[in-house]
Amino acid sequence: MRRAIALAARGLGSTSPNPAVGCVILDASGATAGEGSHLRAGGPHAEVHALREAGERARGGTALVTLEPCAHTGRTGPCARALVDAGVSRVVYAVADPNAEAAGGAATLAAAGIDVEGGLLAEEAEEGNIAWLTSVRRGRPFVRWKYAATLDGRSAAADGTSRWITSPGSRADVHRLRAEADAVVVGSGTARTDDPHLGARDAALLDSEITQPLRVVVDSSASAVKPGARVLDGSAPTLIAVAEDADASRIEGLAPVVRLPRAPGGTGLSIPALLRGLYERDVRSVLLEGGPTLAGAFVAARAVDQVVGYLAPALLGAGPHVLADAGIGTIAEALRLRVTGADRIGPDLRLTAVPVLPAPPATAPASEES
Amino acid sequence: MRRAIALAARGLGSTSPNPAVGCVILDASGATAGEGSHLRAGGPHAEVHALREAGERARGGTALVTLEPCAHTGRTGPCARALVDAGVSRVVYAVADPNAEAAGGAATLAAAGIDVEGGLLAEEAEEGNIAWLTSVRRGRPFVRWKYAATLDGRSAAADGTSRWITSPGSRADVHRLRAEADAVVVGSGTARTDDPHLGARDAALLDSEITQPLRVVVDSSASAVKPGARVLDGSAPTLIAVAEDADASRIEGLAPVVRLPRAPGGTGLSIPALLRGLYERDVRSVLLEGGPTLAGAFVAARAVDQVVGYLAPALLGAGPHVLADAGIGTIAEALRLRVTGADRIGPDLRLTAVPVLPAPPATAPASEES
Repeated sequence: MRRAIALAARGLGSTSPNPAVGCVILDASGATAGEGSHLRAGGPHAEVHALREAGERARGGTALVTLEPCAHTGRTGPCARALVDAGVSRVVYAVADPNAEAAGGAATLAAAGIDVEGGLLAEEAEEGNIAWLTSVRRGRPFVRWKYAATLDGRSAAADGTSRWITSPGSRADVHRLRAEADAVVVGSGTARTDDPHLGARDAALLDSEITQPLRVVVDSSASAVKPGARVLDGSAPTLIAVAEDADASRIEGLAPVVRLPRAPGGTGLSIPALLRGLYERDVRSVLLEGGPTLAGAFVAARAVDQVVGYLAPALLGAGPHVLADAGIGTIAEALRLRVTGADRIGPDLRLTAVPVLPAPPATAPASEES
Repeated sequence: MRRAIALAARGLGSTSPNPAVGCVILDASGATAGEGSHLRAGGPHAEVHALREAGERARGGTALVTLEPCAHTGRTGPCARALVDAGVSRVVYAVADPNAEAAGGAATLAAAGIDVEGGLLAEEAEEGNIAWLTSVRRGRPFVRWKYAATLDGRSAAADGTSRWITSPGSRADVHRLRAEADAVVVGSGTARTDDPHLGARDAALLDSEITQPLRVVVDSSASAVKPGARVLDGSAPTLIAVAEDADASRIEGLAPVVRLPRAPGGTGLSIPALLRGLYERDVRSVLLEGGPTLAGAFVAARAVDQVVGYLAPALLGAGPHVLADAGIGTIAEALRLRVTGADRIGPDLRLTAVPVLPAPPATAPASEES
């Protein structure tokens, strides 16, 4: 199963709106007969790849799959059916499929007399597929907020300079996160100040081997993205999100535009509406890269599912913060997280954390009893 | 030697102005014959304790000492002499004594025909005695800046609430740092806002077993420390540092007062003068606990030797920062550090780091050439 989880990771960033899945087929004697990954939406599922490789050796064997095999016919046939037809006698999967449309695979397999077991290395497999699983469970894209800061929480010095706070190793790691994400999102302040490119690069790969994320600029007033901006270079798709009432004539023709409502009582866009708009465009995972205002809006909307912080061992004592107003006024309202990783990357420290409590539904009714 | 380093740690916080030293005596057959720690200034040195325990078994044996044995007669006789008299045939020490007054021990031993070797586990022993070694090398107390913050670098929420950002485990760890330090230093803002006690507590020890640090309030205008403040409770000594030109009548009789010059062009006290004043009072290590203004002044004076940050996995998006103006205007001027530790303490992360470049002398002459 650990091998299947590694195989699944190969598809990260290129399978949306599908999950990244890995599969290993063992023959009746327990030897590996086939391996497969789901590599892109519309392409064969992991089980199909692995069964093809295994051929006749699958008969009487075991399939190890990171996700419960699907039972529905989408662009490809149902995998549960394919496993039955191949004559495997046992299927072990890690994580149950939370997708109502595709679920039922385990039942299909059991009905065909196959020995089915779920939950093996579930936590590890869930971690590897967290973006897709979260998107299914929440009905919106998984949001990973990435920030880079000094130990005192500054993202730049007092004069705005920020090149480079973190090390080359940390910056390369950010490109890996971009390649894994379906979309990279920044706010108008970042677009204005940094003129970022937002594409994914990898020194070890050709550009053609990298699935570029959709580059999204949240430009409520349609005033930050200018002709010639690096984000418009055509090397990856770009989307500009503007407010419904904005005068979009300045950005006309620069890139596709989506018009969204503003947040109630605020000047920025509604974060739930933005995420809905991206979900409709098959975006299942978002890498939120800032700046502090947009990050604050996401935190205020409780729409951050994971935090990845690159801490540079430096002190500034002045300069912009990584996170601005998130509507939190007192310590009891702090967004509490659980640290899931603390790794050294060169001189820097990479911290990963997830919110302790699940995000409440966007429109939680006030409890009238207690 | 590792055992000697552990023995040395027992004296941390109670030996100033002396170093914390540990010693193990092996007999001629290599078996442990005696162990000793230097526990308080004026008391016997580690070597003397260990030689007493070893008695005749020291003859022909080996002494393992964390610091080069002293050659001078202070309140106690020179240890190099005692080792010669005890008839040990070999002395292995970790770190050479940088103290001009006490150095020469190795030479004394070698002249007496003893086999002397230095440098064994030097890095580890240096780490354990870093406060004293730094104070000798710099001629001022070692300064450890401790802060507690959210991932976004806030020490409190927008309304000033900060109880509790970090976990009980982190707070207990701070009490350990206080017990190790000769003095704990806070600024007037912290004194006013938090009314801190600043004493060291340890759930595992009786209060009488803890060496309490000197509690120092930097109260330039003599207006922050009020009668009844917890820092005046008599459970540990207290010192109030005020500006030479301040009207100290408001704090008269509350606690001992030291008058110091203000920083050139600033309203706060001169940090080098403050450290000099503490050094003259036999303070060899300072735990700087904030607030942001005082911490900024220490960073500006390049007078921070170690940073210990307790990072709580929480986000606030508003509230005071851990570090205020340190005179750093652009990224190239950032105080760069090297991470020396990243440890989980319950839900929190404790980061330790040291400046990458040695602090320049307080009065570095401007280079007139090149």
